[in-house]
Amino acid sequence: MASRSTQILEAAARVIARRGVRGLRVEELAEEAGVSTGLIYYHFKDRTGILRNTLEYINDRAERYTTAAEGEDAEPLTPRAELEQVLLLELQDIPEVRENSTAWGELRASAVFDSVLREDLARATLVWVQEVAALLGQVQPLAPAATLAAAAERLTALLEGLSMRWLSGGLDITHARGLLSDAVEVELAGLSKP
Amino acid sequence: MASRSTQILEAAARVIARRGVRGLRVEELAEEAGVSTGLIYYHFKDRTGILRNTLEYINDRAERYTTAAEGEDAEPLTPRAELEQVLLLELQDIPEVRENSTAWGELRASAVFDSVLREDLARATLVWVQEVAALLGQVQPLAPAATLAAAAERLTALLEGLSMRWLSGGLDITHARGLLSDAVEVELAGLSKP
Repeated sequence: MASRSTQILEAAARVIARRGVRGLRVEELAEEAGVSTGLIYYHFKDRTGILRNTLEYINDRAERYTTAAEGEDAEPLTPRAELEQVLLLELQDIPEVRENSTAWGELRASAVFDSVLREDLARATLVWVQEVAALLGQVQPLAPAATLAAAAERLTALLEGLSMRWLSGGLDITHARGLLSDAVEVELAGLSKP
Repeated sequence: MASRSTQILEAAARVIARRGVRGLRVEELAEEAGVSTGLIYYHFKDRTGILRNTLEYINDRAERYTTAAEGEDAEPLTPRAELEQVLLLELQDIPEVRENSTAWGELRASAVFDSVLREDLARATLVWVQEVAALLGQVQPLAPAATLAAAAERLTALLEGLSMRWLSGGLDITHARGLLSDAVEVELAGLSKP
């Protein structure tokens, strides 16, 4: 069973994905989570505490669904297949991914107007970029670290851009996945050049 | 002198870039534009009319600042330089571009929660993708149309992703421009392959 604080963060992710960060009121969150507002303040101190912990929570959840699939396969994936899978698992039209991506995009968008989440977002993005750079490096071990990092920044920023187009109804999910897949191909070709 | 309706749309873009779409109230817009709420309703009918016209307005404005620079140059740009310039002019740390990009990103983000702008956004995105695809085709005339369109979709989605990272304080503008520049290079290399 999820702990009380996890239960609150699950509810916060749902509320943010449904109505946006700016629609998040502590009273509504308490109702959604089935707890008192007092318990929310006890665990997370204030609205900023709720937002920062929700960002961490949806990040951890994305980490889980982008790596979980590995264990299910009988054979280990090639580095190339693993790289592509980690990225493509963020573009799936299933409720968990849709909710998570909506909340992530919304936290990113709200940081344009409100500086409170900026550091956390920058740190989470850096960790993500480093993970993707490491996977790129497994496919192209001779590429310099800075080149790998730049390619990883592009692939993750592209993924965010495609995700926003998908979630705002302007891009079909299958087409979005195809574009991302081809981007991996194009970036790997760029890294293989001397 | 700008017409009254342009004056209202200028004010709407400012308000959206300052406080977000969800912060836009007709009373506040009237005050910002220095007109009556009645005049706003007369020109744009309702809140949806304001948002749709503001989207068109910021789109036209982006069109202007991404093409204006051409005329100033003594020599015409090469197709390759023109392509790169059109994209890079969207990543400039000057008030007009910052305001326009903030408003565009915010309209895109709000469309995740509110379907009213989705069609207009999809149409505006399509026009933008086609323009970039045409520029790519001038550099690589032998590439098939579908391949050019896919590369243009990736470059514009990447630009949106980088722009959001820049505006939310997680990415330095010079670095963002470098990443975009390299993406043009990588995509053109991909298009040159048989």
